[in-house]
Amino acid sequence: MSHNTFGHLFRVTTWGESHGAAIGCVVDGCPPNLPLDEAYVQGFLDKRKPGTSRFVTQRKEPDEVRILSGVFADDRTDGQVTTGTPISMMIENVDQRSKDYSEIRDRYRPGHADYAYDQKYGIRDYRGGGRSSARETAMRVAAGAVARRVLGDGITIRGAVIQIGPHMIDPENWDWDETGKNPFWCPDAKTAAQWESFLDETRKAGSSAGAIVEVHASGVPAGWGAPIYGKLDSELASAMMSINAAKGVEIGAGFAAASYSGEENADEMRMGNEGVRFLSNNNGGVAGGISTGQDVVVRVAIKPTSSILSQTRSVTRDGDEVDVRTKGRHDPCVGIRAVPVAKAMMACVLADAKLRHHGQMG
Amino acid sequence: MSHNTFGHLFRVTTWGESHGAAIGCVVDGCPPNLPLDEAYVQGFLDKRKPGTSRFVTQRKEPDEVRILSGVFADDRTDGQVTTGTPISMMIENVDQRSKDYSEIRDRYRPGHADYAYDQKYGIRDYRGGGRSSARETAMRVAAGAVARRVLGDGITIRGAVIQIGPHMIDPENWDWDETGKNPFWCPDAKTAAQWESFLDETRKAGSSAGAIVEVHASGVPAGWGAPIYGKLDSELASAMMSINAAKGVEIGAGFAAASYSGEENADEMRMGNEGVRFLSNNNGGVAGGISTGQDVVVRVAIKPTSSILSQTRSVTRDGDEVDVRTKGRHDPCVGIRAVPVAKAMMACVLADAKLRHHGQMG
Amino acid sequence: MSHNTFGHLFRVTTWGESHGAAIGCVVDGCPPNLPLDEAYVQGFLDKRKPGTSRFVTQRKEPDEVRILSGVFADDRTDGQVTTGTPISMMIENVDQRSKDYSEIRDRYRPGHADYAYDQKYGIRDYRGGGRSSARETAMRVAAGAVARRVLGDGITIRGAVIQIGPHMIDPENWDWDETGKNPFWCPDAKTAAQWESFLDETRKAGSSAGAIVEVHASGVPAGWGAPIYGKLDSELASAMMSINAAKGVEIGAGFAAASYSGEENADEMRMGNEGVRFLSNNNGGVAGGISTGQDVVVRVAIKPTSSILSQTRSVTRDGDEVDVRTKGRHDPCVGIRAVPVAKAMMACVLADAKLRHHGQMG
Amino acid sequence: MSHNTFGHLFRVTTWGESHGAAIGCVVDGCPPNLPLDEAYVQGFLDKRKPGTSRFVTQRKEPDEVRILSGVFADDRTDGQVTTGTPISMMIENVDQRSKDYSEIRDRYRPGHADYAYDQKYGIRDYRGGGRSSARETAMRVAAGAVARRVLGDGITIRGAVIQIGPHMIDPENWDWDETGKNPFWCPDAKTAAQWESFLDETRKAGSSAGAIVEVHASGVPAGWGAPIYGKLDSELASAMMSINAAKGVEIGAGFAAASYSGEENADEMRMGNEGVRFLSNNNGGVAGGISTGQDVVVRVAIKPTSSILSQTRSVTRDGDEVDVRTKGRHDPCVGIRAVPVAKAMMACVLADAKLRHHGQMG
Repeated sequence: MSHNTFGHLFRVTTWGESHGAAIGCVVDGCPPNLPLDEAYVQGFLDKRKPGTSRFVTQRKEPDEVRILSGVFADDRTDGQVTTGTPISMMIENVDQRSKDYSEIRDRYRPGHADYAYDQKYGIRDYRGGGRSSARETAMRVAAGAVARRVLGDGITIRGAVIQIGPHMIDPENWDWDETGKNPFWCPDAKTAAQWESFLDETRKAGSSAGAIVEVHASGVPAGWGAPIYGKLDSELASAMMSINAAKGVEIGAGFAAASYSGEENADEMRMGNEGVRFLSNNNGGVAGGISTGQDVVVRVAIKPTSSILSQTRSVTRDGDEVDVRTKGRHDPCVGIRAVPVAKAMMACVLADAKLRHHGQMG
Repeated sequence: MSHNTFGHLFRVTTWGESHGAAIGCVVDGCPPNLPLDEAYVQGFLDKRKPGTSRFVTQRKEPDEVRILSGVFADDRTDGQVTTGTPISMMIENVDQRSKDYSEIRDRYRPGHADYAYDQKYGIRDYRGGGRSSARETAMRVAAGAVARRVLGDGITIRGAVIQIGPHMIDPENWDWDETGKNPFWCPDAKTAAQWESFLDETRKAGSSAGAIVEVHASGVPAGWGAPIYGKLDSELASAMMSINAAKGVEIGAGFAAASYSGEENADEMRMGNEGVRFLSNNNGGVAGGISTGQDVVVRVAIKPTSSILSQTRSVTRDGDEVDVRTKGRHDPCVGIRAVPVAKAMMACVLADAKLRHHGQMG
Repeated sequence: MSHNTFGHLFRVTTWGESHGAAIGCVVDGCPPNLPLDEAYVQGFLDKRKPGTSRFVTQRKEPDEVRILSGVFADDRTDGQVTTGTPISMMIENVDQRSKDYSEIRDRYRPGHADYAYDQKYGIRDYRGGGRSSARETAMRVAAGAVARRVLGDGITIRGAVIQIGPHMIDPENWDWDETGKNPFWCPDAKTAAQWESFLDETRKAGSSAGAIVEVHASGVPAGWGAPIYGKLDSELASAMMSINAAKGVEIGAGFAAASYSGEENADEMRMGNEGVRFLSNNNGGVAGGISTGQDVVVRVAIKPTSSILSQTRSVTRDGDEVDVRTKGRHDPCVGIRAVPVAKAMMACVLADAKLRHHGQMG
Repeated sequence: MSHNTFGHLFRVTTWGESHGAAIGCVVDGCPPNLPLDEAYVQGFLDKRKPGTSRFVTQRKEPDEVRILSGVFADDRTDGQVTTGTPISMMIENVDQRSKDYSEIRDRYRPGHADYAYDQKYGIRDYRGGGRSSARETAMRVAAGAVARRVLGDGITIRGAVIQIGPHMIDPENWDWDETGKNPFWCPDAKTAAQWESFLDETRKAGSSAGAIVEVHASGVPAGWGAPIYGKLDSELASAMMSINAAKGVEIGAGFAAASYSGEENADEMRMGNEGVRFLSNNNGGVAGGISTGQDVVVRVAIKPTSSILSQTRSVTRDGDEVDVRTKGRHDPCVGIRAVPVAKAMMACVLADAKLRHHGQMG
């Protein structure tokens, strides 16, 4: 219900503004006795970190996470483990350049949340985007690390960028290993090279580019999720659409399914060695809102970073027409850093689905 | 939280199976003193009704709604009005042909929820699809009628089908009036003619076609919705993805935004006669999860009806390989009847956003 | 969240007014494959039924329940069982005397919800109390029947009235069997006789009496419930206080604990044949919000029926001072019929706690 | 839903263990533009602080609160104000004596949550009671401070202890001013003197005493709260029962109402200068779950502190019988420090009711 909370049994609440004292989250409902320490969470955070290549923002955010509650270790536990009580995690904000914000406090940057926040609340912490900053997604990644402990080793979550600007990958070239070898999480080496020059130009032009992110979860057993409004795909749609700059979500064949015939779209079934085997996965691992045992496949459309150097027409808080340029150290393609975030959201949604399934089914 | 409930303050719970005694819903949280009677709700239901053209299922579902609670009329009220207590609505199931279900009770129809339900629950009411039947959407439409009373006359919700199978409309020809003149809710007269022959062929071939539905809400004031996990677009994504056969949701430019540059995607602002005027609407009326005052624009991808006459490979409950054909009176393109449903979901999400906004902002 | 819903995983939504078309409930989240049919639910409803003795209202409410969804039977199931989908139950209202309500529509009956409803909603269905009528509790009893299926045979829920007006039972005489032998659910035969004459006088005087109800749940395993705001006693307090006319709730020693010393209050422990054995149960089976394995013991204070024949001073809707007498067929002591209701609420809270426990703990 | 969260629109999540790094809370849903700074919150915390008299624990907990998010100040705001985004507050734990916990880690202290936690989770942070420590209530007080800003100056919340051990106050002597003049929040000077000697003896004997706390909220308008399961008294019961050591809650006349006749209990009405005037307040300001405009009156029974020096019989984790004494700096009567906590819970429940009322009623 709470605006800053998601999940039902595995429940994540985040708080904090980009340039406030800190950002943080509380993960409630986590089962006890799962191994969890700061190093483990930090490993996930480091993958989302700014400054790792010239294609992401050059801001320095050490993003050192502290776990403040919900874990315990003594000489009887096998390292630090969860206790079943709420897990509070926090990252102090350190790279807050004390600069002059007078410009953005009065001018609405097109594509940003500035205008909408002011219309709603009549006040906002405009420093660095405040609550609407993508910095908040660090806490999703931290929560996602906990979610993976809930899911266990049997479930693998992988993510890739499959389109940047107008350039899509060639699915024929898909190689998961490739995603770790380039700064774009690109599964197609050839396309990665293309993106490199495309994004260099984009960056030099002070412009930005959109992207499509794809996430797969393997090993999800059949039966998670539930009709009608707690459908697994419905929960995924909500979670993914809540990511900053997300404008579209699709499951399996997604929008392409609209052009298919019933025969093309049917995921036919045969018996395999380990039970039912599907001959295709247009449903993206979900039927009737419930997992089928196939890979859960989600794609998210990320719009181009709204902060661009080019001059755009806008208005001020007082209703004067102005031209706006957003200087600063921005991501030329925010979709790249969305990969660990989308994977974390997948992990959280699945962890919640797992606990809810156990709730009803024992 | 409840699997069969959506909304937070304007809250809809649906129940019922396709071939059970009845289907129904409970709408809780509705403000009092809004006019509401059965004729009003029935008007919306009639637009979703089967049997209105040869392009939708020929099943006869009179779908006569009864309002069982939450309304009141005496000589002091202006007709029947809501009282602020839960509104229970019900439609008795009448066209339940007592046929032999032995075939589908044991065979999993590809693309259907059969297999997933059995994997989850170990039991299902297989008659006519049971709980996973699109029949449930009638109650969304009924709830949507109540939601429109909450929204009032200042907000207009319109819907269209913009693609059937591989055939998209030409946006240049868009005419909302046209949507009422053909059996497809098609805003482009030319494309409607094309769809007619395409769907006739599809139907004759015993096949089915996917579709894309687009819904616009005009008159939504700036400020509804809220960061971070209660974003208006996040709520819409969840609501739309919960519609039967939905596989994708996008807001504004949606997936197309991935190929835009920051300059192309920016919704620039100027001052108009009534305050801020946006020069484009790539954001689909939502920024930072909050409405901007522009039209809220959502598209939903609907996969082709899974019930087709063609033979598809499948398995039985006992693990035997079989071939399945789904006879019966099915929609060749279930996307057509999804239009009133998607409009209803838009209405419900907005009604909830309105109440929540008032909750926090007074 | 919804005002007319309680529970989290085992979730009950009720609807309906006393003199509307019907009352009903939707039970969502119930596990599948539990036996459930109308006869079973009716058995619980019959225990709450009016007209069973001269000490309860003489209204005739056949209260015949229909189960409209969420259950299924075929030749493979062992009778009718739940399917895991929402269970809708309904009772049509039949004994609605078409009388003149002009008096109570304008006059606020002291102790009733009339004034508060009007202040909140500006409108109310005043016929027979509308939504605030104790008739709504029939649906709690129906939901409680489902909850007992979730709990299974290992958990026994028993209830008694331990005080009517100023007359308390003698705890020394407590005999559970006795509760079925008198019309008061009184566990003390001697006190039952006293109550009989006391309530006869009360009834003849057109007055009414308060009562205290006590409910025990035996067989609840240790570990249900959870800190901090989902404490089992917190959930019980909320559930019991929502019963019409309830003004107080206590767990275990309750208010008496305030006068105890730490030594008197401590529930000391020793080892028994089947694990830990407590030497007393001042905690009422709950410590730190979590069940201990002892009997869960709750008491509820029920105020005297507000509808009395005696003249009481009041005001009208228009602000005129008037005297009010409430004619009709009212319960002289509504606390008697609260016993099956309080037992049902105990069952629902425990069923929810069971599912939530499984959710987090697997 | 979340176990560590309460409230619906004004929503409080707490986290932290007694001897972990810190304790904290997140308050979500707060309206924007309300004045809020650390000094204001600290003022409330100081009233709950240990070590203020010899009748409360001598532990030193500086309890210095930090507000980490959700507030903002610049040269246009009137001091620091809320922004409508989540308010994160934290208190670092400092007085954690590094002592030997080996005793309580294996022995279950009677009356404590030790055994129940172990039964549920199989693990617990036993240091100082961990999550079940009353230290958590500091964050309720912090959240309550925010709630008071939401309520505004028109609503006054006052609290008193009306019974300690077997010694009740004389209601005839009630003087609110007196509550600030003795270390017991006692409104009856005479009784305060009696408690002083009683508690000195209790303390010296290493024993403890229970108490009853009473909280009044004045200025609450008619119409807050809502039927049936969101009743204001139901929400209060849940909130109060969640306080550590609470074993009973009553509204208005509470359990005493059980012994009243309908005539005695009726809150008759007459017209006053400012509308309806009630001639008594047995309902405690709530009828049908909705506020009536009278004072909202709640009482909470607090059991004696479980930590006592006297030897009590218990068992160890391994099932051995042992005798336990709980050394340390414990409150002889934890009910005293429960007063600011119960007032904070009243504030939070009312703030939530206010926002929910606005949500439905505009």
